[in-house]
Amino acid sequence: MPRVTVTRRLRFNAAHRVHNPALSDQENAAIFGKCNNPNWHGHNYILDVSVEGDIDDRTGYVFDLGALKQIVEREIVDKVDHRNFNLDVDFMESVIPTSENIIVAFWRLLNDRVKPARLARLVLWETENNYVEYTGG
Amino acid sequence: MPRVTVTRRLRFNAAHRVHNPALSDQENAAIFGKCNNPNWHGHNYILDVSVEGDIDDRTGYVFDLGALKQIVEREIVDKVDHRNFNLDVDFMESVIPTSENIIVAFWRLLNDRVKPARLARLVLWETENNYVEYTGG
Amino acid sequence: MPRVTVTRRLRFNAAHRVHNPALSDQENAAIFGKCNNPNWHGHNYILDVSVEGDIDDRTGYVFDLGALKQIVEREIVDKVDHRNFNLDVDFMESVIPTSENIIVAFWRLLNDRVKPARLARLVLWETENNYVEYTGG
Amino acid sequence: MPRVTVTRRLRFNAAHRVHNPALSDQENAAIFGKCNNPNWHGHNYILDVSVEGDIDDRTGYVFDLGALKQIVEREIVDKVDHRNFNLDVDFMESVIPTSENIIVAFWRLLNDRVKPARLARLVLWETENNYVEYTGG
Amino acid sequence: MPRVTVTRRLRFNAAHRVHNPALSDQENAAIFGKCNNPNWHGHNYILDVSVEGDIDDRTGYVFDLGALKQIVEREIVDKVDHRNFNLDVDFMESVIPTSENIIVAFWRLLNDRVKPARLARLVLWETENNYVEYTGG
Amino acid sequence: MPRVTVTRRLRFNAAHRVHNPALSDQENAAIFGKCNNPNWHGHNYILDVSVEGDIDDRTGYVFDLGALKQIVEREIVDKVDHRNFNLDVDFMESVIPTSENIIVAFWRLLNDRVKPARLARLVLWETENNYVEYTGG
Repeated sequence: MPRVTVTRRLRFNAAHRVHNPALSDQENAAIFGKCNNPNWHGHNYILDVSVEGDIDDRTGYVFDLGALKQIVEREIVDKVDHRNFNLDVDFMESVIPTSENIIVAFWRLLNDRVKPARLARLVLWETENNYVEYTGG
Repeated sequence: MPRVTVTRRLRFNAAHRVHNPALSDQENAAIFGKCNNPNWHGHNYILDVSVEGDIDDRTGYVFDLGALKQIVEREIVDKVDHRNFNLDVDFMESVIPTSENIIVAFWRLLNDRVKPARLARLVLWETENNYVEYTGG
Repeated sequence: MPRVTVTRRLRFNAAHRVHNPALSDQENAAIFGKCNNPNWHGHNYILDVSVEGDIDDRTGYVFDLGALKQIVEREIVDKVDHRNFNLDVDFMESVIPTSENIIVAFWRLLNDRVKPARLARLVLWETENNYVEYTGG
Repeated sequence: MPRVTVTRRLRFNAAHRVHNPALSDQENAAIFGKCNNPNWHGHNYILDVSVEGDIDDRTGYVFDLGALKQIVEREIVDKVDHRNFNLDVDFMESVIPTSENIIVAFWRLLNDRVKPARLARLVLWETENNYVEYTGG
Repeated sequence: MPRVTVTRRLRFNAAHRVHNPALSDQENAAIFGKCNNPNWHGHNYILDVSVEGDIDDRTGYVFDLGALKQIVEREIVDKVDHRNFNLDVDFMESVIPTSENIIVAFWRLLNDRVKPARLARLVLWETENNYVEYTGG
Repeated sequence: MPRVTVTRRLRFNAAHRVHNPALSDQENAAIFGKCNNPNWHGHNYILDVSVEGDIDDRTGYVFDLGALKQIVEREIVDKVDHRNFNLDVDFMESVIPTSENIIVAFWRLLNDRVKPARLARLVLWETENNYVEYTGG
């Protein structure tokens, strides 16, 4: 039975401030530079959600990508789109909102929602030049 | 000897209808929604063909990408470009033309054509938001 | 009062056959080549709808792009997405569904819907290498 | 003497809130929807700055695009990148930070800086689906 | 009769050196910086060729874009692709190969080839951040 | 501890000639075709540098992407941007400048510079249709 990986891309816009409250303002400024701006900045994020599994004979699908879109919208996009990662997003509380921490939090929200298929990979683009990926390891 | 993966991207336009003839029209409509339109719809597909191997000392190539392009055009693009996956493509007969089934069929057509290099990965974009990948497993 | 042009991009997938029923099959094949395939082919179309007007002091908008999106979805996208331009689209009846004819038909559908702003330009991408534009002239 | 238009593309990330302080919170929410989130959101903006003029025989340039980049960085990007349009940007004071108002403010900052060439057009992408353009009229 | 503008995008790769032989090496280095490297550098150029005209009732076309592609390949791409603008391209002799000068030369090569339609606009991208456009004025 | 892969994309323009000096001119022309043009050609290269590691609790980063950018600029981009791979780049001496050989050379330059994180993958796009990737094997 061929195992194929299928991906749905979604997009959202959000504000954030890269800031560690356990450090002084000076340390934060030194480490995070302009990403530490107290008045926030923001991005058009792109998120690729990849699910792996066998092809279902009846549908020809590994996973209905319309259904996957709905899951990701409900679990993630509706909670972060046009929001502030530091102030508005409960699952990011007490976490520095770097792309690395965001993607791990996204994984935890999605991992049980796609069974019996397997969540295979998340990719999150923050800008056209920066992206992070996570496979659950 | 370093092993490098080289990729050639190709494009084609095709029509299809996502439909399982073993199901009733009502079931098909319920499962596949607007993708089940009996009068077809279509896409600009993007196909990435990746081949892995050692770098040849004489050419500096893993695989001549001009030759790879010709193989993929002959084996795939000439058979599907400006065609209908349900009606015009013999290797898709009696298969639901989802991206998952299409990519597995493509793999079978290409797998023996790139030896002694190894077909490493196919990626097929159906829209700017949906893609599937297959590594032969 | 500054006059600014604002654009909303939308996307849809459709099948078509470039075919003039007034000509013989042989003439159609000679003129339209593979685009004349009787079993259809299709594209991921991209449509840019541009509206020009004064900036409204109260909103800072020329035209609410969320409202513009709804208008274009209702007037156009809902009628052509996952459809066949030759068979399913009433406003394309007895018109050869080239991008040129499609964009002029779109203009007629939208032109009165954006007043008192002015429909300034439509751009329609059929593939990544081909696009047409129309300004109503 | 041929007149050519040359364009330099620049990028910046910023936060904003689309909000008119002259209106009630309820009116703001009704007009601007999720773009009115009091905790901000943000975008990866793309700005195309186009300058028109004769080709200089000595350089083959209409305008040295390296110099144009420096002007735009100094006049605009350094003031808005990783900033908040509502809180951090002096030239946006008491203006609703829609793309329409932003692009007109940018024009005023750049218009005298490119002489004797002529500022021909600004295009500002807020997301991959929305952009505004201004030619000074 | 609606007048529509149709565009075909083509691509080519070339080397060049931005250099004015009438100036000293020192002046060239000062004006053109790293673009003056005596050992050349190169780009993946993107060229958009736009033609305007009435829609032909018989074909639904303003201009057959397959034919336009052939014209541009024969007149331009075959002469510049995988070539050196300073050394290999006869129509660039004694012209500094900036994008501005290249696009004007392209215009002269194409202008008479698209009649009775009208060559409406050329756009030439040198990098993802720089492009020039010319409308024949 | 979650292990995440972070990527920074960089770009440079360069000239090259695909040529093996151990072969005759005729053999070179036969093998490399137009890529063997003695007067060079060039590309806008895109390089994705991916580093894998644990998320640092103090910063939320796997690797500061600003620091990664500086490393890649110093070790690679400053040496190849607006240069000729055959004539100007010491680490490519006596190597045929194919993308395969370039990416392996880049790996050797970067591999020790990102510790204690791990260089996970390099991807190098030569054109929009061709790319190579290397993971150090």
